[in-house]
Amino acid sequence: MSDPQQLAVNTIRTLAMDAVQHANSGHPGAPMGLAPLGFTLFTRHLAHNPADPEWPDRDRFVLSAGHASMLLYALLHVTGYDLQIDDLKAFRSFESRTPGHPEHFMTPGVDTTTGPLGQGLGNAVGFALAERLLAARYNRPGHEIVDHRTWVIASDGDMMEGVSSEASSLAGHLGLSKLVVFYDDNNITLDGPADWSLSEDVGARYAAYGWRVLHVEDPNDVAELDQVMKEAASAEGKPTLVTVPSTIGYGAPNKANTSAAHGSPLGEEEVAAAKRFYGWEYEPFTVPEEARQVADQTERGLRLQADWEERFEAYREAHPDLAEDFERVMAGELPDQWDADLPTFETGHGEATRKSSGAVINAIAARMPELIGGSADLSSSNATTITDGGAVHLEDFSGRNLNYGVREHAMGSMMNGMALHGGLRPFAGTFLNFVDYLRPALRLACLMGVPVVYVMTHDSIGLGEDGPTHQPVEQLAGLRATPNLVVLRPADARETVGAWVQAIRRTEGPTLLALSRQSLPVLEASDADEVAHGAYVVTPDDANPDVAIVATGSEVHLAVEAAAQLAELDIAARVVSMPSWELFEAQDDDYQADVLPPDVPVLSVEAAASFGWSRFADDHVALDHFGASAPAEDIFRNFGFTPEAVAEAARYLVEEWEDSDE
Amino acid sequence: MSDPQQLAVNTIRTLAMDAVQHANSGHPGAPMGLAPLGFTLFTRHLAHNPADPEWPDRDRFVLSAGHASMLLYALLHVTGYDLQIDDLKAFRSFESRTPGHPEHFMTPGVDTTTGPLGQGLGNAVGFALAERLLAARYNRPGHEIVDHRTWVIASDGDMMEGVSSEASSLAGHLGLSKLVVFYDDNNITLDGPADWSLSEDVGARYAAYGWRVLHVEDPNDVAELDQVMKEAASAEGKPTLVTVPSTIGYGAPNKANTSAAHGSPLGEEEVAAAKRFYGWEYEPFTVPEEARQVADQTERGLRLQADWEERFEAYREAHPDLAEDFERVMAGELPDQWDADLPTFETGHGEATRKSSGAVINAIAARMPELIGGSADLSSSNATTITDGGAVHLEDFSGRNLNYGVREHAMGSMMNGMALHGGLRPFAGTFLNFVDYLRPALRLACLMGVPVVYVMTHDSIGLGEDGPTHQPVEQLAGLRATPNLVVLRPADARETVGAWVQAIRRTEGPTLLALSRQSLPVLEASDADEVAHGAYVVTPDDANPDVAIVATGSEVHLAVEAAAQLAELDIAARVVSMPSWELFEAQDDDYQADVLPPDVPVLSVEAAASFGWSRFADDHVALDHFGASAPAEDIFRNFGFTPEAVAEAARYLVEEWEDSDE
Repeated sequence: MSDPQQLAVNTIRTLAMDAVQHANSGHPGAPMGLAPLGFTLFTRHLAHNPADPEWPDRDRFVLSAGHASMLLYALLHVTGYDLQIDDLKAFRSFESRTPGHPEHFMTPGVDTTTGPLGQGLGNAVGFALAERLLAARYNRPGHEIVDHRTWVIASDGDMMEGVSSEASSLAGHLGLSKLVVFYDDNNITLDGPADWSLSEDVGARYAAYGWRVLHVEDPNDVAELDQVMKEAASAEGKPTLVTVPSTIGYGAPNKANTSAAHGSPLGEEEVAAAKRFYGWEYEPFTVPEEARQVADQTERGLRLQADWEERFEAYREAHPDLAEDFERVMAGELPDQWDADLPTFETGHGEATRKSSGAVINAIAARMPELIGGSADLSSSNATTITDGGAVHLEDFSGRNLNYGVREHAMGSMMNGMALHGGLRPFAGTFLNFVDYLRPALRLACLMGVPVVYVMTHDSIGLGEDGPTHQPVEQLAGLRATPNLVVLRPADARETVGAWVQAIRRTEGPTLLALSRQSLPVLEASDADEVAHGAYVVTPDDANPDVAIVATGSEVHLAVEAAAQLAELDIAARVVSMPSWELFEAQDDDYQADVLPPDVPVLSVEAAASFGWSRFADDHVALDHFGASAPAEDIFRNFGFTPEAVAEAARYLVEEWEDSDE
Repeated sequence: MSDPQQLAVNTIRTLAMDAVQHANSGHPGAPMGLAPLGFTLFTRHLAHNPADPEWPDRDRFVLSAGHASMLLYALLHVTGYDLQIDDLKAFRSFESRTPGHPEHFMTPGVDTTTGPLGQGLGNAVGFALAERLLAARYNRPGHEIVDHRTWVIASDGDMMEGVSSEASSLAGHLGLSKLVVFYDDNNITLDGPADWSLSEDVGARYAAYGWRVLHVEDPNDVAELDQVMKEAASAEGKPTLVTVPSTIGYGAPNKANTSAAHGSPLGEEEVAAAKRFYGWEYEPFTVPEEARQVADQTERGLRLQADWEERFEAYREAHPDLAEDFERVMAGELPDQWDADLPTFETGHGEATRKSSGAVINAIAARMPELIGGSADLSSSNATTITDGGAVHLEDFSGRNLNYGVREHAMGSMMNGMALHGGLRPFAGTFLNFVDYLRPALRLACLMGVPVVYVMTHDSIGLGEDGPTHQPVEQLAGLRATPNLVVLRPADARETVGAWVQAIRRTEGPTLLALSRQSLPVLEASDADEVAHGAYVVTPDDANPDVAIVATGSEVHLAVEAAAQLAELDIAARVVSMPSWELFEAQDDDYQADVLPPDVPVLSVEAAASFGWSRFADDHVALDHFGASAPAEDIFRNFGFTPEAVAEAARYLVEEWEDSDE
C-alpha cells in the first residue's frame, strides 16, 4: 500500500478512536479492524456522490453492524460528505448528526438506520430487490438507468440473528446478484470470543442459501481487498458473501482481538499506544492533507453522477413517459387519479374486511405501479395478491407479488429497505397475531418514518378454530402504543376503503390495517371519508345520549345491535366507530368532544385487551385473556361478545353513572 | 409392511381426515403424508408411557408443524393415551381436548403448545438441552437416570422462520446429540409449491450448523423409517436432521401434492376417494381391532417406565440426596431456605437495579441449583452471570450460564422448552428494547403458563448514548397488555430484591424484570416486601394529599424530588411506587383505594409511552415519541424528565382539578 493510502486508512482509525474517546462512549474496535475495507470500498468501488447523497442510481451502503457507526462517519467525512470534524466531535451527543448508531434521518449519506442486529442485512436485501424491481420496470434496451449495487458490512451478531437468516435465504432464492455482504468474521462478540456461542460454518450456510462465498486473506491488504471487491462486483447470478477475518481493535497492543475493544472506549493510554503502532503523529481529529487527497471522492462522485445524468437524458429522449414516471416514483409522489377506481359498497353487503381490502388493493394497484405486494405464505388468506401482477422470481422481476415464505421478520425488514430505496410502495400481509414476529422491523419503520403498509388479517378471536396461538389479544394495544404508527381497524368494506386511502396518503410513517377474517355487513351509516377523523358517530345522532358505545372493527356491529336493544329499554345509546385512535387523537378538542361528549358515560367494545381503553371509556367489553379454538361464533358467545352482553354492560354503566352523579 | 401395520397407518390417516371433515376445519394433508413416520416413531422408538404422560425420563415429542395436530391426536388415541374417539370428534370445538393446534395444557401427551411456526423447534432445542443439563447434574456412574431423546416433526414453514435458524445453530454448537428433527420436506406451503419461496439446500444448511443429516427415500416404508430412526438414535455427538420427502395429502387422488390438501377439509368426495385408495372399508372414526393391537403402547410404556423406576430406586439407594433433589426439581418445588441469603441494602446506597439484580441472582442461585441463567450476548451488561456457575458448552453441561449469542428469539423459545421439560428454572437477559425480538416466544410462555424470567435491562432512555434504536418506549405498555405476564420495574435495590422474590415464587407464568442501566439510590421508604402489593406509598403518608404522583423504576426518584419541591409550595404530594401493575390490580379494592384515593388527582411519571396510564392517572409525564442518542442525563433533561418539570405538571394538575371541582 502506498503511504498516502495507509495514512488515509489510519486517519479513519484514529478519527473513530478519537470520537469514541471524546464521547467517552462507543465502539472503537470494529472501525479499527475494518478501516482498510471501508477505505477500499468507498474510494474504489462504491458508486456514490458525496455532493448528492440522494442520487437515485447510487450504490447503497448498509452498515448492518451499526455499532461501528464511527467507521461510517469517518468514511463520510474523509470522502467529502457534508459531515464535518465538529460533527465527529459531537459523536453521541444530543441532536448531533453523529448519533451512537447510524440514523438515516440524521446524517447525509446514511442509507438506513441500523443498530438492532440483523436488520441492516434485511434492509439490504430489500435495497437489492428494489434495484432489480425498478430495473425490470424502467430499464429499456440500451438504457440501463437503474444499475447499482448494495454493499453491506455485517458482524457476527448480524449472522446470528434469525432475521438475517430469513432474508439471506430469500436473497439466494431470488438470486440478487448485485448484493455483496462483507462478513466481519472478527471472532469477538460483546460477551467474549464468538466461539462461545457460534461454531457453525457461516460460509457453508450461505452457500446452502445459494450464495457465492469469497474470502479475504489479509483484511489490511488494500490490494487484495480491491481484487476481491472486483470479483464480488462481477455478478454471477447469486448474491455474494465475503468473509473478512478482521482484527477487532487492530493496533491496540493490549485490547486488540478481545471483547474489551468492542463496546467501550480504549482509554487514553491504549489510544496513544495504538497511534504509536500506526506511526501516527498528529493531534486528535486530524485529517492529514495527503490522506484527504486520496480519500476525497468529490470529483469521482460528480463524474459518476454526471455520467448517469447524461444517460438519463438520453433515456428521457427515448422514453419520456417512463422517465417522468421514474422521477415521480423516486420522489415518492402519488400518481394523478390513483384513487379514481376505489370500489363502493351497498349497505348490507356482507364481506370480510380482508376481502374488501383485496378489492381496494387491486383498484389502487392498477393506477399505482409502485405498489408492490406480498405475504408471508398467506396471500390468499390475507387477500394481498395483485391479481394481474404476477409473482416476483429469479427470472422475472417485473412481477408485483412477493412470496416471502413463512418469514415475517425478513418481510418487515425488506419492506423497510425497499421503501428507503425509493421508487416503490411496499405492503405485505400476515395474520395480525404474527405481527409479533416482525416487531423489531416495524419499530424501525416507525423510527425511520417509512411509508410501508402492514395488511394484518384475522384480527381477533374471529379467526376461529386455529385457536389461541393464532388469535391476537394484546397486539392492538402494543401497536397503538408505538410512536409514529397509524393503526386502522375498519368496521366494514366502506371503512376499509377509507383505511387504505389513509395508508396510501400517509408518507411520514407506516400504517397497519387490522382486518377481519369473518364476513361483516356494510353499515347504514359507515363512511369511507369519515375514517380520516379516526372516529365518528354511526347511529342516527342523538344530541343527548345516555351512553356512548365506542367500538372498532367487527365489534361495531355488536354495538349497533346492542344500541337497538337499549332503545327498547328507553336508553339512548350513541354508537361510535373508531377505526383509528391515532387519527382521532389528531383531531381538535371540539371534534373529539363532539363525538364523545365528556358528560356521557362511554363503554368500549373491542375483542382485544382492554389495556389503554380507559383513555376514552369508563368501562369495557374486552378480552383480557387468551382466546380458544372453536368456530368464531362460539368463541364470541362464550367470551361475552353478544349484543345482549354489550347492552347489559351499557345499561349497568348508565346506572352506575347516575348513582355516582347523585 | 405387514397388513395390521398398514391398517394402523391408514387408521391414523382416516382419523385425521374424518376429524377435519367433521369439524369442517383443519389441516388434513400433513397427517396423511406423515402417518407412517408417526406410527413408526410412536410404536418403535419414542420412549413413552401412555398411562403416565408425565413420566420424567420419557422421550419428548414436539410437533413443530402444529397445524398437523390431528396426526398427534390420532397417534395419542391409537397408542393408548386418555384421548377418546369422542375427543377426536370434538376436534376444534370450544374447550375440547383436541384444539386446532396442540396445547400442552389441554391434552395429555402434548409436551408443548405449537402452531406459530419455528417455536416448536426452538422449544425442542430447549428440551434436548434440559436433558443434557439434568444428566450432568444428576447422573452418576452406573446410574443414568436422565437419558432420553427429543423427537421433532418440522415443516417447510418451521425451516423458514428465523427462530429455528437461531435455535438450530445453537443445537449444533452445543452438540445436542439426542435431538432428532424430521424435516417434512413435502414441498408444499399454504401459498403453493414451497419452491415459490424456498430454494435453499436445507440439509447443507444444517450440516453447516454442525448437524448430522440423514435422509428417508420412501416415507411410506415403515421398515426404512425404522432403520433411519435407529441410526438417528445412535448419537454421534451431533443433533440429527432427517429429511423426509413426504407427500402432502397422500392418497387423495385430486389434492395430493397440492396446497389444497394443506389447510382445508378435503370434502366428502375426496375423502371417500382417498379411503378407496387406502382400501379402507370402515365407518368414519373407526379404529379396527387389528390396528389397535399393533399400535397400542400401553404394555411397552408400562414396561419402559417400570424399568426406569427400578433403576431410579437403585439410584435413590446409592444417592439418596440427589434422588430427593431430582424429585423436588421435577415437581417444580422450591428448595427450603431458597431466600435465606437475599441481600439487604442501606438507604442511599447507589446502584443500578441491573447490578442489584445480579447480586440477588447469585444469592438465590447458591441455594437453588435448578436456576439456570444466560444472556443474548449481553451477560455483563445484563448482570445475569451466576458467578461460580461456569459456562455451558459442548463438553461440559454442568455449567449454569448459557451463552445464547445474539439470538434473543431462540433464547426465549429454548427457555420455554427447558421450563416445560421440568427440573430447571431458566432466566435470561437482553436489553428491554430487544424483547421485541423474542415476543412470539414470550407470548407462548404466557399462554402455556411457564415460569421463566426475563431479565430486561437498560429499561428506558436512561440507556443513553446507544440511542433510539436501543431505547424502549412502547414496550412496557405492550407487555402489560399481555395476559398472564407479570412485569416488574423496581425503583431501587430493595425493590429489586422484592421483584426477584415475586419472580421465583410465581409458578403459573412468566415474569419480566425491567431494570435500569443507571445507578439509583436506595429510597428511604422502599421495601422489598411491599413489591408483592404491586404499588405502595413511599413518601411519609399524608391522609389528605393534594395530589398523588405514581411512578415506576428510575422515575420514582424524580417523583420524590418533585414532591419535596411541591411541599415548598404547600402542595402535599403523595408518591406511590408502582413496580407492578399486575400485582397492584390483584389487590382488593380497599387496598387500591388506600394507595390511590379516588378523590385525589393522580399524575403518572414513567419514561415510556403514556399508553394505558389513564387507568390510574389523570395526567402523565411520559415519553410518547422515540428517544435520542446522548448521555442519559441530557436525554432526561431534554425530554422533560426533571423534578422541576414533574413538580410543575403536578401543580398544574392540582389547579385543573380544583377548577373542575368548582
